[in-house]
Amino acid sequence: MNLTPSPFAPASFPHLPEVKGVRAATGSRGFYARRGVTRDDVFLFAFDEGTTCAGVYTVSRTASADVRWCREALKEGKGLARALVANSGNSNAFTGPKGRDKNEATLAALVATLGVPKEQCFLAATGVIGEPLPDPNYVGAFIPELAAKLSPPDWEAATRAFMTTDTFTKAAGTSLDMDGTTVNFAGIIKGSGMIAPNMATMLGYIFTDAAVAPDVLQEVLQDITDETFNCITVDGDTSTSDTVMVFATGASGVAPITSRDDPRLDSLAMALHSVCLELAQLVVKDGEGAQKFVTIEVTGAASHLSAQIIAAHIANSPLIKTAMAAGDANWGRIVMAVGKSLEPIDDEALAIWFDDVQVAKDGARMPDYSEAAASAVFAKREFTIRVDVGAGDQSATMWTCDLTHGYVDINGAYRT
Amino acid sequence: MNLTPSPFAPASFPHLPEVKGVRAATGSRGFYARRGVTRDDVFLFAFDEGTTCAGVYTVSRTASADVRWCREALKEGKGLARALVANSGNSNAFTGPKGRDKNEATLAALVATLGVPKEQCFLAATGVIGEPLPDPNYVGAFIPELAAKLSPPDWEAATRAFMTTDTFTKAAGTSLDMDGTTVNFAGIIKGSGMIAPNMATMLGYIFTDAAVAPDVLQEVLQDITDETFNCITVDGDTSTSDTVMVFATGASGVAPITSRDDPRLDSLAMALHSVCLELAQLVVKDGEGAQKFVTIEVTGAASHLSAQIIAAHIANSPLIKTAMAAGDANWGRIVMAVGKSLEPIDDEALAIWFDDVQVAKDGARMPDYSEAAASAVFAKREFTIRVDVGAGDQSATMWTCDLTHGYVDINGAYRT
Repeated sequence: MNLTPSPFAPASFPHLPEVKGVRAATGSRGFYARRGVTRDDVFLFAFDEGTTCAGVYTVSRTASADVRWCREALKEGKGLARALVANSGNSNAFTGPKGRDKNEATLAALVATLGVPKEQCFLAATGVIGEPLPDPNYVGAFIPELAAKLSPPDWEAATRAFMTTDTFTKAAGTSLDMDGTTVNFAGIIKGSGMIAPNMATMLGYIFTDAAVAPDVLQEVLQDITDETFNCITVDGDTSTSDTVMVFATGASGVAPITSRDDPRLDSLAMALHSVCLELAQLVVKDGEGAQKFVTIEVTGAASHLSAQIIAAHIANSPLIKTAMAAGDANWGRIVMAVGKSLEPIDDEALAIWFDDVQVAKDGARMPDYSEAAASAVFAKREFTIRVDVGAGDQSATMWTCDLTHGYVDINGAYRT
Repeated sequence: MNLTPSPFAPASFPHLPEVKGVRAATGSRGFYARRGVTRDDVFLFAFDEGTTCAGVYTVSRTASADVRWCREALKEGKGLARALVANSGNSNAFTGPKGRDKNEATLAALVATLGVPKEQCFLAATGVIGEPLPDPNYVGAFIPELAAKLSPPDWEAATRAFMTTDTFTKAAGTSLDMDGTTVNFAGIIKGSGMIAPNMATMLGYIFTDAAVAPDVLQEVLQDITDETFNCITVDGDTSTSDTVMVFATGASGVAPITSRDDPRLDSLAMALHSVCLELAQLVVKDGEGAQKFVTIEVTGAASHLSAQIIAAHIANSPLIKTAMAAGDANWGRIVMAVGKSLEPIDDEALAIWFDDVQVAKDGARMPDYSEAAASAVFAKREFTIRVDVGAGDQSATMWTCDLTHGYVDINGAYRT
């Protein structure tokens, strides 16, 4: 099928800095051949010796074989990474022993071709769930060809290789001066549907030539994930393959950060946070069928978790998301979503704003409520819905998109 | 807007038996006048002295003023009922003190006109959330006109009066021989969107001329609700007005059931269960935009609650519901939904059936999987998805519908 491009698609692929210590290659293994499509569908990243990594994975009880391997490798490999292979077109989830066989064959090929330890190789797969590969070595047999092409990354080509229903390539990068050395960050991400905030979402990879001890990198990534990837939703569905990983090659030559007390960690975490936030928001902006990007802010909650739960109920409500699509400032549905969250609220203190237009206060519609002013906000491509629930001083923010005919079309036609 | 009729709309309104001790009247108060529509939008039911009742209401934290009053009346009135008034077009939710004023004025009119105790009068409102009525006595002033018209119920007219986005009138009835006396049941319901299984859904009323003590009736209704109204979903959204009530006039002349040990209670509960189940399923069949009616059965769960949670994740998943709409037998998405439930499962024992076609067993696709056979089931208007999660011996059933373009249209155009 032809997917209509998202209105948020950037004019061109963003400039990403060079990240020392990272090489990449992409190729077409043929995952899309039976649909009559030829496109790159596998990428291989290779990392210099000493590269550390951190990962956050789906909490799904039906996680893919690849996710299960990554969890094991992260532990067994002591946070070191030498290779990453991902394919699109098949998620290798719910494939039983065959899924594990595919991983073993791919890992054996990486060990043989690159001469690296097995448990420092990470795998990912995205696409159809439950369809076994034609043979266990389907990806493994392709590794030598990819390895021969390894070179400084063509970020755009890599991003294209793991797209599924994505309508545009999504990437973000930044640089940082650390002790007089420039440290670079490049992040790429794929994801459009089956997106819900549950510990990790989609496939996202951030590469940096900073040097960070694995345990520190893991803690930082987890904190950042809670404020970025876990705060987005497209449809409330959680993928079996969700993965976010950071690889730090140390090849910039900067001295390693080995403890949380290192004064340089703050600026590193801020840089990583900005890249992750941009990647996360790009996923919502390319949400299946999305025409609008909406920020949900909940304030006055009894706890941060409570604020998050209320925000998620608003961000996931099909009734609110269809109203966004229609440009209908249907604020009563926001009251409904707050109510069904079952979180502590003071319903007689509830207040609601659309951008700067207050539509409700003290648990009722504004006396001078203007439908025209409220509708003008809902007509915008990007806006903020803020709700104060009057039960405390905690807050949370989430990002969501509208529910359009495009979502229904895409998900009737595309076999994920 | 013109709503496309549901494919499940019956050819005609069902035959309902006469329920002794119940009178009704309907009228057009003008709630839809500003949309240029003239239709009945208020009903009044009056019950003979001695009528008992039971009620189950939304758990929403932003419940309507009417729901709050009903909870209070159920307690203060000791389970006795003399009147029920409902209007469509305005839900009287999130209307603050004005909402309570409307209720007080309506109740005062009922007391003055019918000469009945205030706390034996029940109220309901459905429609737009958050819009205050033009004046507090808007419904109250209409009561004398309705009271003058009270007569044996025209069930179809009553059902029409409280419809909102419903595309057909929904009702069910049955009769029962009890000690040689015929006892009758008539149930009417409205609801199409904002439907999720959360203790009670929509506005549903069942009338019977059986005689049942209020505490017994309440227990029976709660048990039945858990297996009927709480097992349906259209969009996972929970209304601020959800109400299910049973009124038992005792006017059949049958001896009252006053304890749970009465041997006649089983047959009464079965009759009530059959009416509630039919009403609940009718709501799904008239789900906004629904073209398909799908039963979700989860077996092999660790507990009944766990089975319910897994079933709800399947029944509410937008990805599964769009696949149903497209007739795409996308069973991988069912694996996804089971996984995201976070409930205990044995993913290597997972099995899935579409009607009698088994598509997965032992945590993988069937070796002889036939896409044609699976698709043939998804092409049907009604079918069952059964999942065995291999973690125990508990089960649960839910009923859901597909997610279509119609849902997006209706909820962009209709202000609930």
